[in-house]
Amino acid sequence: MSASFEITVLGASGGPWDGTTQCFMIHPTSSAIDISSVCVDGGVGVSSILQILSKSNHPERQNEIESYYESEFEPISKYVDDRMPFRVGFSKKIMDQLELGRNSKSQIYSLSTMATRVFQGIEEYYFTHPHMDHINGFIINSPMIYDPEYNASKNLYGLSFTMEALKKHIFNDIAWPNLLNDGTDMIKANNLKNGVRHISKLFPQWKIIPFKVSHGIGATKAKEKIYSTVYVIVDNITNDCIVVGGDVERDPADGSKIYLDKVWQYLAYKIPLGHLKGIFIECSSPNSLKDEQLYGHMSPKHLVEELDRLLELYSTIPDRTRDLSKQPLKILITHVKMITSLRDPRLIILDELRDMSKETKLEDKVIFSMAVPGYTFSL
Amino acid sequence: MSASFEITVLGASGGPWDGTTQCFMIHPTSSAIDISSVCVDGGVGVSSILQILSKSNHPERQNEIESYYESEFEPISKYVDDRMPFRVGFSKKIMDQLELGRNSKSQIYSLSTMATRVFQGIEEYYFTHPHMDHINGFIINSPMIYDPEYNASKNLYGLSFTMEALKKHIFNDIAWPNLLNDGTDMIKANNLKNGVRHISKLFPQWKIIPFKVSHGIGATKAKEKIYSTVYVIVDNITNDCIVVGGDVERDPADGSKIYLDKVWQYLAYKIPLGHLKGIFIECSSPNSLKDEQLYGHMSPKHLVEELDRLLELYSTIPDRTRDLSKQPLKILITHVKMITSLRDPRLIILDELRDMSKETKLEDKVIFSMAVPGYTFSL
Repeated sequence: MSASFEITVLGASGGPWDGTTQCFMIHPTSSAIDISSVCVDGGVGVSSILQILSKSNHPERQNEIESYYESEFEPISKYVDDRMPFRVGFSKKIMDQLELGRNSKSQIYSLSTMATRVFQGIEEYYFTHPHMDHINGFIINSPMIYDPEYNASKNLYGLSFTMEALKKHIFNDIAWPNLLNDGTDMIKANNLKNGVRHISKLFPQWKIIPFKVSHGIGATKAKEKIYSTVYVIVDNITNDCIVVGGDVERDPADGSKIYLDKVWQYLAYKIPLGHLKGIFIECSSPNSLKDEQLYGHMSPKHLVEELDRLLELYSTIPDRTRDLSKQPLKILITHVKMITSLRDPRLIILDELRDMSKETKLEDKVIFSMAVPGYTFSL
Repeated sequence: MSASFEITVLGASGGPWDGTTQCFMIHPTSSAIDISSVCVDGGVGVSSILQILSKSNHPERQNEIESYYESEFEPISKYVDDRMPFRVGFSKKIMDQLELGRNSKSQIYSLSTMATRVFQGIEEYYFTHPHMDHINGFIINSPMIYDPEYNASKNLYGLSFTMEALKKHIFNDIAWPNLLNDGTDMIKANNLKNGVRHISKLFPQWKIIPFKVSHGIGATKAKEKIYSTVYVIVDNITNDCIVVGGDVERDPADGSKIYLDKVWQYLAYKIPLGHLKGIFIECSSPNSLKDEQLYGHMSPKHLVEELDRLLELYSTIPDRTRDLSKQPLKILITHVKMITSLRDPRLIILDELRDMSKETKLEDKVIFSMAVPGYTFSL
């Protein structure tokens, strides 16, 4: 079964450690031979690109993950299910392009030059929400867009609550230079509409549908609702689909299925199960945290319930293209909070997810892996 | 000559690479035996603390700097003058404290635990200005302050333009949870006044004087003025002083000496030259950039002019405590922009500074080093 999407994880943590927060770099497997990609979120950027390129020079480091809990490093096999297709570093297409660039230049082709090329290839950013851990890498990298050697504009996309926040609170000449209104048009902000498909300018074979989801409430007494976005990306050539979400909590306890459930409904009614190649979804904290400590996120028990609901919806619709017991659905966990813990919270959460799914209809139908930075998943 | 200040560079770049932007962790050499420190800026945080602790486990990496230009790594000796006292990693006091912690615990004392302890020891942050590259690490780390095991509140300080921006644009339940008004009082925002001394609550022997400086104009047609801060820190026990600045440009071309020159005037009139232990100051871009490409920053020619002015001011005041030809003034460069370049821009800038100073009264009186992350300078 060939892959439609190459997803390189530049960052996937949910803080509170800075430096590797969520950013997924994605391109279609079938796209023309160039270095282009889009990102969902920009919590990290060139720093991660540099580290990935650096790691490609050091084979001895390629199968170990920086953990810093029980051990400084842990083997990749603890984080990624062995049925999950992945490679160390960037996709082969990106590496081939960098190699071509190296050969066509007489000057030194440094890691710095290569990182700039990869960054300039990211022509579209799709932000899930305006929290700092999802935007800060892109913001700090943004002056690179004006590099005269690699001059390449970028389009930013998001639902209106995201784009308005970026305009009002970030690109405002206070928190950051207002590069959206500097007269150059190098960075363009574009509003998407909830549930309305958008065709990528960069990869016109992709339709991208943003779904507004719930992400808790504010910290002050006003308790204003916070929102986030889950993106459904459909490749019109292969009809394959991936789901890439930002922070998200379950729908309200009153049973109203108005946010996350809309994603599950869309998938079940529009995407044959055989074409649902993978879901990147948050699971921020272990089950030991009480619901009121989740602050708009999910723990394994919630995620298992949600996936159970998704499969229940699919079960109402005949789908002849896939037997999940032979081709399990691939779930990639993102946004784990790196809290004080004896054991790496990512490993705790993976264990809990795998254990809990055994008691549900997910058993043998879903495989869980951790979205770890520095690897490319083929889905 | 004993040192009064230990300054660990957590980050010092001026972008556009994310991940290692400006954050200086500082404590007095003479302070009580604990793990406390303050930070000037918070452009990076726990991610850098983790990397510094990790490096202490790997002696083979300790004298090399991540460069990514001509070579992946360059030797530390290219960045730091051999007359500059420094050590790899954190100060001995911090490392001793971590060692004590390790011995008093029966549980595993991981890098993660140690990093949390170092972060919790940072009880005060002094921000120079609200640009993202100076705040993002602290913002993303901020939920760690609520870690039940290390419960420790933090005080944030800055001139009013900085603190108002943090309140309005960052801690606003939009870009980030409003942790300044969550009812816990764990993070307190405090306004400082331009030129008015503030006594550190954490280190009462320190008086800290903030000076408002100019940092260019906004990117839109409105061209609003942008400000930043230079902090002068005086230790009342030793009378020694260091200067730690954020982004800064020269005073206006019309000769009005109203911003940066106020710092030089304060130093010359209040701090005997023998007690001026070092100046951390930005020099963002090489001389090859035209003035209109500096966007509120300095290149070597400007910094040399400014330091020349400082020594000129000092020359009008007799100072018997220091012969600069025997004890040169130590200048540490921060905020270099990691632009596309064959050679590491930090090395270009150091060369330009050293070359230019030969033609001025700085010759043999000033030594230049680069503030490189992962090292502690004793001043």
